[in-house]
Amino acid sequence: MSDRPVIGITLGDPTGIGPEIVAKSLLRSEVYEQCRPLAIGSHSAFDRIIHICGLDLASRRISRVSDSEFEPGSVEVYDVWGTDHSELPFKRPTPEGGEAAVTAVIKAVELAMASDIDAMATAPLHKLAMKMAGYDFPGHTEIVGQYSNSPSPRMMLVAGNLRVVHVSTHVGLGDAVDLVQRERVREAIEVCHNALLAVGLDSPHIAVAGLNPHAEPGGMFGPQEEHEITPAVDDARALGMNVEGPLPPDTVFARTRDGDFDGAVAMYHDQGHIAVKMLGFHHGINVTVNTPVIRTSVDHGTAYGRAGECRASDESMTASILLAAEMVRTKNRLESAN
Amino acid sequence: MSDRPVIGITLGDPTGIGPEIVAKSLLRSEVYEQCRPLAIGSHSAFDRIIHICGLDLASRRISRVSDSEFEPGSVEVYDVWGTDHSELPFKRPTPEGGEAAVTAVIKAVELAMASDIDAMATAPLHKLAMKMAGYDFPGHTEIVGQYSNSPSPRMMLVAGNLRVVHVSTHVGLGDAVDLVQRERVREAIEVCHNALLAVGLDSPHIAVAGLNPHAEPGGMFGPQEEHEITPAVDDARALGMNVEGPLPPDTVFARTRDGDFDGAVAMYHDQGHIAVKMLGFHHGINVTVNTPVIRTSVDHGTAYGRAGECRASDESMTASILLAAEMVRTKNRLESAN
Repeated sequence: MSDRPVIGITLGDPTGIGPEIVAKSLLRSEVYEQCRPLAIGSHSAFDRIIHICGLDLASRRISRVSDSEFEPGSVEVYDVWGTDHSELPFKRPTPEGGEAAVTAVIKAVELAMASDIDAMATAPLHKLAMKMAGYDFPGHTEIVGQYSNSPSPRMMLVAGNLRVVHVSTHVGLGDAVDLVQRERVREAIEVCHNALLAVGLDSPHIAVAGLNPHAEPGGMFGPQEEHEITPAVDDARALGMNVEGPLPPDTVFARTRDGDFDGAVAMYHDQGHIAVKMLGFHHGINVTVNTPVIRTSVDHGTAYGRAGECRASDESMTASILLAAEMVRTKNRLESAN
Repeated sequence: MSDRPVIGITLGDPTGIGPEIVAKSLLRSEVYEQCRPLAIGSHSAFDRIIHICGLDLASRRISRVSDSEFEPGSVEVYDVWGTDHSELPFKRPTPEGGEAAVTAVIKAVELAMASDIDAMATAPLHKLAMKMAGYDFPGHTEIVGQYSNSPSPRMMLVAGNLRVVHVSTHVGLGDAVDLVQRERVREAIEVCHNALLAVGLDSPHIAVAGLNPHAEPGGMFGPQEEHEITPAVDDARALGMNVEGPLPPDTVFARTRDGDFDGAVAMYHDQGHIAVKMLGFHHGINVTVNTPVIRTSVDHGTAYGRAGECRASDESMTASILLAAEMVRTKNRLESAN
């Protein structure tokens, strides 16, 4: 068996930039050096963007993974649906686009669960397009969770050295403050710990952010540092994890980026996301954890406004594919060590 | 009259890194090219650190500004107190250090109010040392406010292209959420607008951050975008300001750093501070606004732990001095245009 894992790469919504960034990623030699990539989704949408952007790629529709040859320059697109998306308008959510995006992700999870592929990397889809197609998923994570029978899938945000797990994400800031609870914080630390092991870090060293300015001790600005976060850090230490905190929120992410820690736990969405976006808009990768399926994803949306214009950056997509391959190798190494 | 303004530079707490970073700044030729610098504070503390660190500087104690010669390599230290701090221990708060730090700032404000100096730049002092000396000021801003008869001094944080005014700063995050009120947000926009004019930007273009993830419209995550921030932006526009928002909090600061805007309004302390700290720990400058005195400051503390070790970076101190000089020139230009 080749040591290059098979990575299924879903094309995302065909009316967004998904097919374009996947195609651009598959022009890169390092992708083929690190894995055997298989596009999953609408072949007609993929073929269309190759021609619009004049990319030096051939593509071939297949319906069985075993038909793949993984030759650079000639992409296999796993497409069991055969729908024609060549006339679908760019730049807006459509039921057809939502359907194509969701079914590709579901199929990728099924292929991963059946070990037909080793991991999956996903291009962006759009909540509204999914809804137009009759699906009520908030995002990828929940689809992956449902089809891999995982009750509590979680996300880690990765941007270079900066790896962040959040205590809460898509809730209002007032609610996020209320969700800073000992048990939830401890769980986020544990998710972070396991995710760092999964991306290949031994004995990960984790920083836990405070909630309030300077994470001021003595409850000067709020009780959460003393009553929730410190006890959660103690709980995690009692479980053998190497954790520090609560640390001042304004410097903890810069310190993690600089290598003082392997990962950080953020108390709310923007605490971690502001830091990651400062590293560059195309830099982030999402990693799904707490599921049996290895899945990475770009950290941006369908960018409808720029779809079909051939200007999209594949930086995050390429990084997602390479990280998925790295995670497969780490998993194999850990399994063969046991 | 020279077009190099006289900048009073307070030495901060002598047991911290203040005297060291001021001395290092005064070794730089660009400081003397842009202004006439006058150190204000303990001459004995300044002289001590020059000798400990072996810096190629002479220093001379003076008690009248008019005795200054402003020659590079020979620093005048305005010291009307004459206290001997040469044996004061480094690395911890002391009543003597707090007294020296506070009185230097008060004297600098008085000299600025009397037009004996054109502006002031301040090295760090420590709240606890001030308290040990019997002063109850939370920080520099309040001292400057009180001695310049300014009822509502405010801060702008500056780091390269990233200039940020906060709706609230040193309050817990739960309270900060409650402080996102139309009138307060509008006032912060106005402070930002005036501060950007003061640092020399014509017709400043201002971004206003949202409070909740993605600043999601329709109140999906919280009502503040719709009920408080949008009306405040409308109010500011009605006053003729060039403002956009509420914008997604996780990208607005990166966009401002990249030049899409001249400045940004942050809804709470860490929203702006996380972004600034990602630019580098010694990069920030604080600018006091809404007072008649031009005052800039380093964006870090006394760093007691590293005091006396000659390893402190003067990057923020030097930038503060140069920005103060620039602000004086801008003020003179605006006044002569009127």
